[in-house]
Amino acid sequence: MATNPAEKARHHAGREVAVIGIGQTAFGERWEASFRDLVTEAGLKAIQDANIQGEDIDAVYVGSMSTALTIGQEHVAPLVIDHAGLADFHMPATRVEGSGASGSIAFRQGVLAVRSGDADIVVVGGVEKMTDSSDAETARIVGSSMDQEWESFVGATDTAIHAMMARAHMDELGTTLDMLAQVAVKNHDHGLKNPYAQFKRPITREQVHAAPMVADPLTRLHCAPLSDGASTVVLCPLEAAESFTKKPVKVAGTGQGSDTLALHARHSLTTMAAARAAAERAYAQAGWGPDSVDVAELHDAYTVNELIALEDLGFFPRGGAGPATLEGETALGGRIPINPSGGLKARGHAVGATGLAQIAEIVSQLRNEAEGRQVKDARRGVCHNTGGTGATAVVTALEVL
Amino acid sequence: MATNPAEKARHHAGREVAVIGIGQTAFGERWEASFRDLVTEAGLKAIQDANIQGEDIDAVYVGSMSTALTIGQEHVAPLVIDHAGLADFHMPATRVEGSGASGSIAFRQGVLAVRSGDADIVVVGGVEKMTDSSDAETARIVGSSMDQEWESFVGATDTAIHAMMARAHMDELGTTLDMLAQVAVKNHDHGLKNPYAQFKRPITREQVHAAPMVADPLTRLHCAPLSDGASTVVLCPLEAAESFTKKPVKVAGTGQGSDTLALHARHSLTTMAAARAAAERAYAQAGWGPDSVDVAELHDAYTVNELIALEDLGFFPRGGAGPATLEGETALGGRIPINPSGGLKARGHAVGATGLAQIAEIVSQLRNEAEGRQVKDARRGVCHNTGGTGATAVVTALEVL
Repeated sequence: MATNPAEKARHHAGREVAVIGIGQTAFGERWEASFRDLVTEAGLKAIQDANIQGEDIDAVYVGSMSTALTIGQEHVAPLVIDHAGLADFHMPATRVEGSGASGSIAFRQGVLAVRSGDADIVVVGGVEKMTDSSDAETARIVGSSMDQEWESFVGATDTAIHAMMARAHMDELGTTLDMLAQVAVKNHDHGLKNPYAQFKRPITREQVHAAPMVADPLTRLHCAPLSDGASTVVLCPLEAAESFTKKPVKVAGTGQGSDTLALHARHSLTTMAAARAAAERAYAQAGWGPDSVDVAELHDAYTVNELIALEDLGFFPRGGAGPATLEGETALGGRIPINPSGGLKARGHAVGATGLAQIAEIVSQLRNEAEGRQVKDARRGVCHNTGGTGATAVVTALEVL
Repeated sequence: MATNPAEKARHHAGREVAVIGIGQTAFGERWEASFRDLVTEAGLKAIQDANIQGEDIDAVYVGSMSTALTIGQEHVAPLVIDHAGLADFHMPATRVEGSGASGSIAFRQGVLAVRSGDADIVVVGGVEKMTDSSDAETARIVGSSMDQEWESFVGATDTAIHAMMARAHMDELGTTLDMLAQVAVKNHDHGLKNPYAQFKRPITREQVHAAPMVADPLTRLHCAPLSDGASTVVLCPLEAAESFTKKPVKVAGTGQGSDTLALHARHSLTTMAAARAAAERAYAQAGWGPDSVDVAELHDAYTVNELIALEDLGFFPRGGAGPATLEGETALGGRIPINPSGGLKARGHAVGATGLAQIAEIVSQLRNEAEGRQVKDARRGVCHNTGGTGATAVVTALEVL
């Protein structure tokens, strides 16, 4: 057996996999829709998009972070089956949880199920219902994704941890507040063009600077919202994909990485080793790298995260992401459009659904169906989805042939 | 593509998989040991048993039910990596959650990862820390595995739901209180011989009948405890297994099934369709069925569950499990020994760890290392692990060649 992870990944033994259907709900404060409503809406859209019936489905995966604390419910995978009208098929229904990366981890497990031959048609859903919780409850929920004993219990908040990363990025790499703020400005501009986006209003860098401070240097407009929403994707073996859709999208590579839960134990505050490991594995499987990528969705929970991700995934050298953002290279029409959906900042961050909303966006782009936000001739795309403050990362490489 | 699930399952495209290492903690009220301590203890034992090093591990899966409510922590997979000293390898670390079936689902995802070629060596850990919670908190935790809106919120408890199943089994199939009680008596007898078991005292049917009533007809001695504990298993491709161990155990089949979360929506109270579907898939992959099984671990959260499982997995016809139990056919030395570990009833039920403790027990049996509880010449074994009141079920078929 090979000992180099990239070498191993390149030679995965299984079948090739394609995305044949996508479905999303609008993200936002969806007070009229329950957890059950959201997951069913996105699921039915994806099933229709894939031209399949319930009896065709071999397995279901569900990504959701903290259903115990948001809706008082664990064991949500069979709940999803039930409310989608699929209970009588008794298929495997599996929930995965990896904080904000839950959706992409679920997608990845679905891919492995098809590659292994365990399932032919797999439905992967991500869902979260965040806005029914009070601010205090939400703080507890978000804190549960960080190291409870070493961070949350002693008062560190998610924003405070990311503020440390932002300060370190500024100190080590020369990143400026304008560069950080431009991430939010760009993603709000993109969100204007996405019918599923939570925020549809343009903002300026001055507004970002002047917004209420949350954790210095991050004002409120550096922070993504916590949203309600769901997103679903349907997978099948690549060789069978054309019997379901004229526009299959190949899963070229999937990589996942981990790191310490607590920030203080990591080797650097300005790069995420979990994301670098995930990207290395995904690119190795795909057989191509960042220079081939036409469009990407990156996990911009805070503005600094997009800059770190741009560098971790190899789109820019260390310290290069901020200046490039300021110069418009990552905007629609720029050299490498990032977060055409609006990203977490403007599309919204329905935690367990976010990774699958990223994949749905890239699939739309590669199908040339992204309408007002379409990246011209996009053939290869990447999604980057992280959990907590970066202890989990998943990178997914997608392409049309 | 085949449309019959069993037909599909039989032809999985991936590599064969073996268990090459196991490790367990004692189950019980482990007030001296934290979640982190438990998972590390079991993990290190399994890694030593498999003769591997940290750098050999390609992926880690963690099964745990309700860490948000027990230890205030989601996102536990990277926590496990960190506390096992593995953070610097940045391997994929994935938590799955399916209530009491979490451990077996994690095992199954690990098997799919190896089959697919995504990973060669996979460590799968299950862990739960139940006994630091108050009775009220525990009721909330257990209730979160049932249908929160339709069952728990309106006052149905886990024991009440299972009491309905027990009454239905008595009414429909002629099962008696003595038959139910004998499950607990037998499993306490078995637990006496397991060094990891929580309860090491024999009980009589009279004691079961006379114990305090929880939900008629289930007295306290019909109910498994909720325990602290962890269990870990190491997997690799079957073809490589002999380079790690002299006694590899082949994963002959793995099946998973689902059903409605709420009991009222199911077609029967006396059989679990999720378990029947899981068993059908596992047997189909293995190429053998219940007649070939030498030993099994079944999910006896309540005494009635063992009888239902005995019938769902085909060891006895409907209504036959109770009389067979009373006649000693399922005891050590009987025709088909069930729960030689003591089962959930006597070994204990550390929720997310239970499925992996079952697998560790069967692996010990197939390696001929189960000492005082060894089933003579055991070559084929089965594990059956369910979540909630039966909305999730996993069946695993293991064999030595």
